[in-house]
Amino acid sequence: MMVRLDTIETPAILLDRTVLERNIAAAADRAAAHGLQLRPHVKSHKSVAIARMQVAAGACGITVAKSSEAEVFIRGGIADITVAYPLIDLTKITRLLMLAKEHGTRLNLIVDSAVGVDAIGTAARDMAFETNLMVKVDVGLHRCGVDPSGDDAVTLARMIANRARLTFGGIISHAGHAYSAVDRDAVVAIAREEQTIMRDVADHIAAAGMLVPCTSVGSTPTVWACDHYENTTEIRPGNYVFMDLVQASLGLITKADIALTVLATVVSCNDTHAIIDAGSKVLSSDRGPHGSTRLTSYGLAVPVGTDHPGMPVVSLSEEHGFVAHGGQCPAIGDRLRIYPNHACPVVNLARAFQVIDENGKFELWPIDAHGTVF
Amino acid sequence: MMVRLDTIETPAILLDRTVLERNIAAAADRAAAHGLQLRPHVKSHKSVAIARMQVAAGACGITVAKSSEAEVFIRGGIADITVAYPLIDLTKITRLLMLAKEHGTRLNLIVDSAVGVDAIGTAARDMAFETNLMVKVDVGLHRCGVDPSGDDAVTLARMIANRARLTFGGIISHAGHAYSAVDRDAVVAIAREEQTIMRDVADHIAAAGMLVPCTSVGSTPTVWACDHYENTTEIRPGNYVFMDLVQASLGLITKADIALTVLATVVSCNDTHAIIDAGSKVLSSDRGPHGSTRLTSYGLAVPVGTDHPGMPVVSLSEEHGFVAHGGQCPAIGDRLRIYPNHACPVVNLARAFQVIDENGKFELWPIDAHGTVF
Repeated sequence: MMVRLDTIETPAILLDRTVLERNIAAAADRAAAHGLQLRPHVKSHKSVAIARMQVAAGACGITVAKSSEAEVFIRGGIADITVAYPLIDLTKITRLLMLAKEHGTRLNLIVDSAVGVDAIGTAARDMAFETNLMVKVDVGLHRCGVDPSGDDAVTLARMIANRARLTFGGIISHAGHAYSAVDRDAVVAIAREEQTIMRDVADHIAAAGMLVPCTSVGSTPTVWACDHYENTTEIRPGNYVFMDLVQASLGLITKADIALTVLATVVSCNDTHAIIDAGSKVLSSDRGPHGSTRLTSYGLAVPVGTDHPGMPVVSLSEEHGFVAHGGQCPAIGDRLRIYPNHACPVVNLARAFQVIDENGKFELWPIDAHGTVF
Repeated sequence: MMVRLDTIETPAILLDRTVLERNIAAAADRAAAHGLQLRPHVKSHKSVAIARMQVAAGACGITVAKSSEAEVFIRGGIADITVAYPLIDLTKITRLLMLAKEHGTRLNLIVDSAVGVDAIGTAARDMAFETNLMVKVDVGLHRCGVDPSGDDAVTLARMIANRARLTFGGIISHAGHAYSAVDRDAVVAIAREEQTIMRDVADHIAAAGMLVPCTSVGSTPTVWACDHYENTTEIRPGNYVFMDLVQASLGLITKADIALTVLATVVSCNDTHAIIDAGSKVLSSDRGPHGSTRLTSYGLAVPVGTDHPGMPVVSLSEEHGFVAHGGQCPAIGDRLRIYPNHACPVVNLARAFQVIDENGKFELWPIDAHGTVF
């Protein structure tokens, strides 16, 4: 189906297929060039179709955030899934293991506490399902993960190795604080520190007599900023499929690399602002990952069919966006493409991607895992 | 079904039925005492069940934000609906009018431009469906609405009166800037100013020979702070069914009046923060309506079954919340109830309310209009 941007009902989540495919290939090439496994985080897109494209391009499997999200991708036929979240609830874990067993999915879970090992160990034993369990290491975000300066990683690895049906799967980290870095060099410094910390933890576990089969790091900035990876076997970027203004603000990409935009219509005008039909229920109020506020607006609005440098979306109410027009208000009815600050929460609010390519070909792709926050 | 808060799977959107019913009754009493029509804004709850409770308590109809939201409530049997949004797209308008005609719904739309009158007038004529059209007035939020100091209100009212199938339905405003007021007195001042502006606009239209059948104002703060209403025939509060920390911060309510909380589980702990399984994809990154940032955290976390004064949710990533525990970390697995800053975007992210009452009775209510942003 062919479509013109002036006929799509708004607000719409536009996905530029050409840029999407280029971004997927770029990550696959980067992983291959450095001999790394690529395991993309699909919480960014929540789409089985895009996950299959990533696997077809060479990804070893995927990463998900929550057990309910994992369930969607198990049913979607992805064969190797890491749930990068410290699951501790026996009901959730049992349901997940049951489904993975039924579908023959290889499942990798993470822990940072004995509570987690107990819960997952109990479920794996009761379900008679072999599960890989990785130890989450805090490399500076101070969210989840064991303190790398202590013995917790070794203690948990040993606990895992001693439980029936559990295999110690290695160590895993997320340097999300890279999103608050001042520039690309600062991102590289955080990535280097992550690699060093993970090497030390791996050495510590190995010295205690255990094999560390995987050292997994991830975040789009740290992966994109690095030109070499030490002590790393796997990378888990997520946002790279779309990219957004936060990645651009870190100096990692340009606007031409951004695959996802929001198509909106001007519904009202006043002296200072064009009011558009996309507010916080479409763009989200998220100015950046991990609560980062390095960007002060909520996106950049470009009139469709122009190379306008963009007008900032300076404020949002739930159903309206305020675009500062600088004295030249677009007409009521005009279409604007909004480059979002943070693509992931925008996708989470939507139900489908309107996929377009450079020839105007149009497809609708469902956001299969929308609402999977459990 | 009876349920205990330690057995509900998290994250969950808890709705306290007792408080909900009290809030619904309070607004109905207030409207009745002042001889006003109450037309609640249902974008706050997106629930047909709650809309029916509001109508049963005396509401004359409801307000919705978008045409796709209106469609859900037309199908849900609500007989009188105002779409408080400047619709300008002929496709959207025609589809909406067709559905309203089919269901015999009384439909009130709003305009602030000739583009809007043309589009709605064309659809009403072509569908042969009588539609009430109200003129939106900007009373200080500077979002949508005509400038009250000019002649636009009269011009648009006359355009409406001259179109077949359109009836001039009156004037409508939203003093959303009250959310950024410093205190209750400042909210009252904004409400007074709104009433004065609306009186002047109504007088202006009446002087031009047209009847102004309805003067509609709304926002929970301005409605709650007022003890008298002048020149007003209708109020349209929305958030009042739930209330939240923003309303408390304006001095309008206390925490005991808040009907909606998020139940979350502690999944990890570190020296400074308890990490919970509710992040921006559950709590939203919204710190308050209309981009207001008067509150600096993202909610207040109270351990279940305690009268703890609450710990602030100081930061969010997509799937995790950071609760500052002040040196006394809850245990992994503990349940916390989060009082959200702004209830409306939290509801928009969810699929169902877990409705509880003081006896522990439990029901699941769908959020019928989730995702209706078109």
